[in-house]
Parts: sequence; C-alpha cells; structure tokens
Amino acid sequence: MNEWTGEFFGTLVLILLGDGVVAGALLEHSKAKNSGWISITAGWALAVIFGIFVAKAFGSPGAHLNPAVTLSVCIQTGDFSKLLLYISAQISGAFFGALLVYLHYLPHWKKTTDPSLILAVFSTDPAISYTIANFLSEVFGTIVLVIGIHSIFAPSNNALSPAFGACLVGALVFAIGLSMGGTTGYAINPARDLGPRLAHYLLPIPNKGTSNWKYAWLPILAPIAGAGIAASLLML
Amino acid sequence: MNEWTGEFFGTLVLILLGDGVVAGALLEHSKAKNSGWISITAGWALAVIFGIFVAKAFGSPGAHLNPAVTLSVCIQTGDFSKLLLYISAQISGAFFGALLVYLHYLPHWKKTTDPSLILAVFSTDPAISYTIANFLSEVFGTIVLVIGIHSIFAPSNNALSPAFGACLVGALVFAIGLSMGGTTGYAINPARDLGPRLAHYLLPIPNKGTSNWKYAWLPILAPIAGAGIAASLLML
Amino acid sequence: MNEWTGEFFGTLVLILLGDGVVAGALLEHSKAKNSGWISITAGWALAVIFGIFVAKAFGSPGAHLNPAVTLSVCIQTGDFSKLLLYISAQISGAFFGALLVYLHYLPHWKKTTDPSLILAVFSTDPAISYTIANFLSEVFGTIVLVIGIHSIFAPSNNALSPAFGACLVGALVFAIGLSMGGTTGYAINPARDLGPRLAHYLLPIPNKGTSNWKYAWLPILAPIAGAGIAASLLML
Amino acid sequence: MNEWTGEFFGTLVLILLGDGVVAGALLEHSKAKNSGWISITAGWALAVIFGIFVAKAFGSPGAHLNPAVTLSVCIQTGDFSKLLLYISAQISGAFFGALLVYLHYLPHWKKTTDPSLILAVFSTDPAISYTIANFLSEVFGTIVLVIGIHSIFAPSNNALSPAFGACLVGALVFAIGLSMGGTTGYAINPARDLGPRLAHYLLPIPNKGTSNWKYAWLPILAPIAGAGIAASLLML
Repeated sequence: MNEWTGEFFGTLVLILLGDGVVAGALLEHSKAKNSGWISITAGWALAVIFGIFVAKAFGSPGAHLNPAVTLSVCIQTGDFSKLLLYISAQISGAFFGALLVYLHYLPHWKKTTDPSLILAVFSTDPAISYTIANFLSEVFGTIVLVIGIHSIFAPSNNALSPAFGACLVGALVFAIGLSMGGTTGYAINPARDLGPRLAHYLLPIPNKGTSNWKYAWLPILAPIAGAGIAASLLML
Repeated sequence: MNEWTGEFFGTLVLILLGDGVVAGALLEHSKAKNSGWISITAGWALAVIFGIFVAKAFGSPGAHLNPAVTLSVCIQTGDFSKLLLYISAQISGAFFGALLVYLHYLPHWKKTTDPSLILAVFSTDPAISYTIANFLSEVFGTIVLVIGIHSIFAPSNNALSPAFGACLVGALVFAIGLSMGGTTGYAINPARDLGPRLAHYLLPIPNKGTSNWKYAWLPILAPIAGAGIAASLLML
Repeated sequence: MNEWTGEFFGTLVLILLGDGVVAGALLEHSKAKNSGWISITAGWALAVIFGIFVAKAFGSPGAHLNPAVTLSVCIQTGDFSKLLLYISAQISGAFFGALLVYLHYLPHWKKTTDPSLILAVFSTDPAISYTIANFLSEVFGTIVLVIGIHSIFAPSNNALSPAFGACLVGALVFAIGLSMGGTTGYAINPARDLGPRLAHYLLPIPNKGTSNWKYAWLPILAPIAGAGIAASLLML
Repeated sequence: MNEWTGEFFGTLVLILLGDGVVAGALLEHSKAKNSGWISITAGWALAVIFGIFVAKAFGSPGAHLNPAVTLSVCIQTGDFSKLLLYISAQISGAFFGALLVYLHYLPHWKKTTDPSLILAVFSTDPAISYTIANFLSEVFGTIVLVIGIHSIFAPSNNALSPAFGACLVGALVFAIGLSMGGTTGYAINPARDLGPRLAHYLLPIPNKGTSNWKYAWLPILAPIAGAGIAASLLML
C-alpha cells in the first residue's frame, strides 16, 4: 500500500463510476438511458467522492486522482519529486477503470450504432468546436476546481472532517459539471480524458469510430495550464 | 432486540422504500409515474440509509441488510457463526417489505396491465439477457459495494460519525445505481432480489405474469461471488 | 418565544416551502412548471429541514410541525398536557403558510384553469380513490415517519448533531415521498393537509373548485392512527 | 486579503456558477441544454456553497455575497460602517463573474437566437409581469433567506461546523429556488441581478436584446425591503 496504489485504485473507481454513468445514460437498452444531465453530473460527483475514499484507504492520503491537482500541489509546495509517480498511477487507473466500463456494459455496445455516443462514454469532446474557447473553458473549470479545493481545506474551515471534505470536493465537481460542463464536458483532469481515450482506441468495441486524437491534447494541456494559473494565484 | 430483529426490520424498510420507489415510478396512475432513473436511484439510496438507521435502532449494530455484505464480513473476520442468522433475517425482512409494497400500492396493480412492469417493482432483470455479462455486472457492482464500504469505514476516515457513515453507504449505492445499474438493475444483494421475488410469486397480484425464476439464481450467486472476491482482495 | 411560536413559525415555513414547490410545479406560467416529482419531493424535504430550523430558533426545541409526531411523543412519554397547544400552533401555522403561498403566486392562479391543480397545491388527494387502501397508505407512511425519526435519534446514533438530525428527518420525508407518495400524495401530517385546505376554502382564489371536504377526514385520521400504532410498537 | 477581496471573489464564484448553470440549461448546443429546473436550482445552491467557501478563504469570514444579507446584519448590529465596502465588492464580483460566464460559453451566444434566453442567463425577469406581486415575491423570498440564515446559525444549533453551515445556506437557497423561484426567478440579492445585468448591457454578446432596465429596480429594492423587514422582525 502506497501512494501509487492509492492513486491507481482511486482513479480506477473515479472512471469506472464516472464513465459508467455516461454509459448508462447514452448506451442503447440501458435502464438508465436518457437519465439526463442531472444524473450524469451527480454520478461524476459521487465518482469523485468514492474515488477519494478508495484512494485514501489504499494508500494515498492526498487522494488527488488528477494530474492537474497533483501539479498544483507540487507548484505550491515546490516539491515535484512525486509528480511522475502520481501521474503514472492516475493514467493507469483511468485506463483500467475504462476497461471495466467496457466489460460492465458488454452487450450494450453492439446495440449502440452511433459512434459519437460510444466515444462520449470514454472521453470528452466540445459541444461547439472552437479551439480557443474550448481551451478557455477547460482552463476556467480547472481554476475553479483548484481554487475550490483550496477554499474547502482552507484554515477558515477548521475542524473539517476528512470524510466531509471528500464530499465537498465531490459537490464542487457537481457544481463545475452543472454550471461549466455544457461547453466541453468538463474534463478538468488530463488522466480522466487520456486514460479512457486510450482504452477506447485499444479495445475491440463494436460500432466504435475514431478516438478523435486530434482533440486529445486540449483536455491534457488546458487543465495543466489552469492548474498552473490557479496555483500561481494562490501563491500571490 | 437482537441482531435478527435489527436485520429483519432494517431489510424490511430497505425493500419497502426501495421497491416502493420503483412502484411509484412504474405503476399506472401513480403520482410519481415516470419520475425517472434519478428518482429511482435516489430512492434506493435513501432506502439504504433508513434501512441502516432502523437496523441499528432495532438491534443490529452492523446493519448489513445484505447477505453479500454479511458474507464479506464473515470472510474477513473468519467467523461464520452468525451467517445463517443474518441471512434468514434479511430474506424474511425483504419478503415482508415487498408485502407492504403490495398493500401500499393496492389499487394500482389492477390499473397496470404490463406484467414486466409489475415484476420490475419486485425483482431485477437484465436490460439485455446475456448470462456471462449479466453475471459480471452483478459481480462488479458488488465488488464496488464491498470495497466502497471498506473504504468509507477505513482508518483514514477517523472520527467518522455512525450517522454520517450510514449516509455515505447510501450515497455509495446511489453511485452504483447511477453508474452501474443500467445493465442488470443492480441487485448486488441476494436478499433484495429473492425476498421480493418470492412475494411476487406468492401474492395474488392482479395482472402479474411469471416471476422469472430462471433468472433468479444470478442475482443470488453473482453478489456472493463478488463479495467473496472483494473480501479476498481486501485480505491480501 | 415559546413552543407555540416555534411550532407556528416552523409549520408556516414547512407549508410555505412545501405547498410552494407544488405551486411552482403545477401552476401555469411558473418558471418551475413541470419540474417533476423529484423536484416536488426534494422541495418538501427541504421544507421539513428549514421548518425544523425555524421552529427551534423560535422556541420549540422538539420541532414537531406535525400533530401525528406530537401525538406519538405524547404516547411515549405519557404526557398529553401540551398536545392541544402544539396542534393549534401547527394548524394555524399551516393555514398562514398556505396564505403566503397564495400571495406569493398571486398572478398565477388566474392563468391556471384546472381546479384540481389548484387544490393539489394546498391539499392531498388520492391517485386512485379507494378508501381502505388510501387510509392504509397514509397509515404506512406515518409509521415509517415515526419509526424513522425514532431510529435517527436512537442511542445507536450517539453524537448526532441537532443540525444533522434535522437534515436526516428531511431526508426521511424525501424517502417517504419518493417511495410511498405516489398513492395519496403523502400527507402523513394532519396539519399539513387541514390548514391549507381551510385556506383553499376561505381564500378568493380564481378558478378554484371544491375543497374536497369529503376526503379531508382521511389525511387527519390516518396519520393519527399511524402515529398511534408506531408509538405503541416502539413501547413494546 | 480582507473583507473586500473575500466578498469580491466569493460573489464572483457565486455568479460564475449560478449564471453558468442557467447558461448551460438555456443556450443552444450546450451539453446541459434543457437540463431543467432541478439542475438550475441545484446549480445555484452549489454556487452559494462554494461562493461562501471562497469568500471565507479570501478574507471575508461572514461571507455575505449579498447586499440584502449585509444590510440585515448591519440593522441587527447597528453598525453600518462596512455596508458600502461590502456592497461595492459584491456588485463588482457579480459583474466579473458574469463576464467569465460570457467568456466560458463564448461560441454558444451566436447559436442562440432568442434574446430573452440570453438575458435570462444574466438577470431575472418575472414569469408574469405584475409589479406588486413580483415585488411581494422577492420580499417573501428574501425574508425566508434572512430568517432561514438566522435560524441555521441560531444558538439552538450549537456545535454547527462552519462548513456544514455553508452547506445549509446553500440548501436554503435550493429550497427558495424550488418553492418560491417560479414567479420572479428568485433574485433575492441585488448584486446577483445588477452586476450581471450591467455585464449584459456592456458586453458585445451576439443576439442580445434589451437589458430590460425598467425591471432592474425591483430585484434591487424588493430584497432590500425584505431584508429590512426580516431584520426588524428578528429584533422584536
């Protein structure tokens, strides 16, 4: 049990539950078909909460689950020694979480003939393709995430219990999803987008189309930029 | 007051509220008709929370409500002496909870002419019938349940109050429902499926069809397998 | 500040928010029109929570807001001396809460031409008229309410904070609404039904029809019966 | 870091998330399009919660975010010395929050051809135009807000943690939205309406129409009146 296993299993649960709720809402014949945006954003919020619980229980007390969060912590502490350890665990966990979603919904892929719905289970794509605005959306979302987490755990909330703090981080992601997710689908986490996109690319999913690699850089770089900006603002 | 009464009344409340929310959403003329997946999954989450509160208040401090959870605890502690006591209370409570749902919605059965909706109030069935995949879905759901509960009550959440812990278990079932329920309807609990299926079989419900006994083994055995796998993983 | 004012203002807030969410969902031209069962049940849950907070802040530490709850406490303690004081405050508060809903939605009544929608803002009525079953539904709902409250505040939940306890009672009413409300609209509270029905009868509401007094006895007597049964069970 | 920066950044986050959830639900091509009243009211509730967390972390322990709340505190304490400081920070923060919503949803304005939807992202307007009733609605909503906050933080809730208190204030705004928002869109906060209306007026938003200044006085004066009435009632 160490930080690698914690980040790995935590991010695996994050993606199993997060990509899972999208699968439930989009794939044909699912009992949760068309359950809507409130279900998708609530499902991702809960995915964050239980990703955090699992990450902590399996060895990562920080429970980042997100390279952008890890980067913001590294910038603020000045200690980058564990950056790659965390990121490798997060991307691996995200990949295997997406693999489990593929297995969990196994008979539903064949019934779903729209390849854009299948890709949407795994990775984000913009509602309107417009690079600068899409980049800005992901930067803004990540800044709210990093500054929100900072505010939740600020000294002004003395006596915050770890479990309640985890719930608040989930609620923060609920808020970002409801209020800022309409544009690019709120990746705000490079591992959340890259790991499942790799899984989409490699797995023999019936009816799948392109993995849309030409968009893949944006939900990696924009959250990194957002985390850098937020961490710098917090150090002023 | 002892563990039997606690598990009995707790599981009774779990099924009264859990099968009740499905009845409200599916039966004709219900004011909650078509209230959707978010209502059904939220209703089951709350059913878990108040099932736990009632189980504790009536004598079962562990408040399992689920033979799969009891089994995972037995495996981890090595003590199987109370396994049958718990399971008999859970299945009995689930049966009587379903009986109360039948009485509560008494005039609505006659108005509902689709027998598959009536069975869906009581027991689970797969969205796409495909035995291996359905089995896998229930195994995965139960593993997330058992490992999630383990993580909620792990030492990393020191100072977790019992009431907040119960709410988190409910939130975990909410997450499993939203993200993994689309395939088989997330039984993840042999008593939750068997008790109400027996009630469906025995009660004089108007317009009822088959109790689909040929599927009934799966939501019993798959959660048991999932609990075994999860408990074994946790003992590594 | 005493128990009368606490129960009065608490029940007033309960009905202002509770009948208000129904008005928002049912009245024509409302921005919340057709917001659905999940909104109505969530709104009533929040109405309970803030009704409790207000009742406590204005002098009633018990914050019953409901003659059935008061009766169950009287039976369990054997002290009926304050029963009428509480009930008079609760019915008065419910009446004035309904009056405020009337004023709050003032221009919307004229636009709403279906008198059954207008009555539904104020009082409950059964989805299917069937006296014995409707009575049973309200008895069952009230038993779950009283036993649920008992379980929330049972000694097994030591160290439960008052604020969290209030939220759990709201969540309990959310559960009863989602899972058991589809039949009779879950009055489970004589004051909640009688006070607003009186307001409906007396106020000059455009397009209103009958106040359906011939059903009015049921959501009074059934919750009383349910509270009596639940309190007796709890004293075994 | 002082109260000005706290109120500024807190209100900025309030409006970024609050106006953001409306943008997501109303603007064309948004992934959250038509996510409905439950999403909008939940989004505003979360906006309040994280607005409070950010306000506290950035220097304002009171975290008002609302001139009406500040006024009610000034009346109760008799100290008006910081009233203008707070209000200037709140209106400025609201303006810049709306500016960020404009940038976040940049490509979506052009696709949205109904100017009333665009204005609804920024400011409130009544469902039925009727000045006295609209004024009353905003007065009632603000009274419930001020008395609700008073009740949450009343001595009867001893040992309430700051983080849980913030969540309860968010839940209170959720309740007001669900139950009382159908009439005028629950401004209940002069800064929430004026700041974004100014942004709507000044920004080069494609397809925008009038900023409806002739209604703008009402969501300023009615919340002030409501706060004055509530604070006076609380001092009786």
